[in-house]
Amino acid sequence: MIILGIDPGYAITGFGVICYEKKCLRVIDYGVIKTASDMPFPERLLAIDQALGELNDRYHPDCFAIEELFFSRNTTTAIGTAQARGVAVVTAARARVSVYEYTPMQVKVAVTGYGRADKRQVQDMVRVLLNLKNLPKPDDAADALAVAICHAHSGNRDSAKAVGGYQ
Amino acid sequence: MIILGIDPGYAITGFGVICYEKKCLRVIDYGVIKTASDMPFPERLLAIDQALGELNDRYHPDCFAIEELFFSRNTTTAIGTAQARGVAVVTAARARVSVYEYTPMQVKVAVTGYGRADKRQVQDMVRVLLNLKNLPKPDDAADALAVAICHAHSGNRDSAKAVGGYQ
Repeated sequence: MIILGIDPGYAITGFGVICYEKKCLRVIDYGVIKTASDMPFPERLLAIDQALGELNDRYHPDCFAIEELFFSRNTTTAIGTAQARGVAVVTAARARVSVYEYTPMQVKVAVTGYGRADKRQVQDMVRVLLNLKNLPKPDDAADALAVAICHAHSGNRDSAKAVGGYQ
Repeated sequence: MIILGIDPGYAITGFGVICYEKKCLRVIDYGVIKTASDMPFPERLLAIDQALGELNDRYHPDCFAIEELFFSRNTTTAIGTAQARGVAVVTAARARVSVYEYTPMQVKVAVTGYGRADKRQVQDMVRVLLNLKNLPKPDDAADALAVAICHAHSGNRDSAKAVGGYQ
């Protein structure tokens, strides 16, 4: 199966495309969608929508895996990030591709085995699990690969239990 | 000009379509887009996207007017509402329709002349300004009409000053 992991943001949205077959993980592509701060906000969201649509057309993922958002402060950024996340979710839904959601702790446990792992530990395990020579950069791309790996390692991929997953 | 006002929410999105010509306001349509709580979240966002797309196709508004979000608490609801707002903004952007954003205070001042007006005062002025027999219901529809009126009464409609507005 092909999984498109997404780390949403209105300034930088990370993406990571992996293949998971016969319990083997293989990286296909990763990177970021950047939008300029001087672009009107609707155009930034449109750029994210279009870029994710192009990734979907190019790789035909079986699903999108997207981290759930938790915020305790910095509400202005949080509202913008949540709007970008809504765009990512609806891009998948319009294409009738399943969406699976994971908490940051689920991602950390799936990738490192430890729910309090720090960012560097997560990135290093992403590198090892995907057999990459170097740490995947930037952080947003690494985070997107991590949530894609989380989906591959979860029991959700063959069940209907997934939050937000639909066939 | 035709203005589509939107009060975004993942459970209930209010909409209000008005015509503003020769300094006269006229209501065209208003109501709400409801999504069931047992629907997967991506399908709820897709339903909002499709319903707003249909309103756009039906009324060909010159612009969308959407209230800005401010949250000080209830973060889970806030994140969901912000995601629904992102969908509304990107629906307009995909259709190349301008989006204008107004703070809740701008809406209150535009509709009632008073930035601390309560919900009932806003609804009553919406009723008077649109020459309706009864208060527009539900609240979400009235709020959407209010932000549409705010756009009609603002100087933004003919200028490039609008936050998020683009031609």
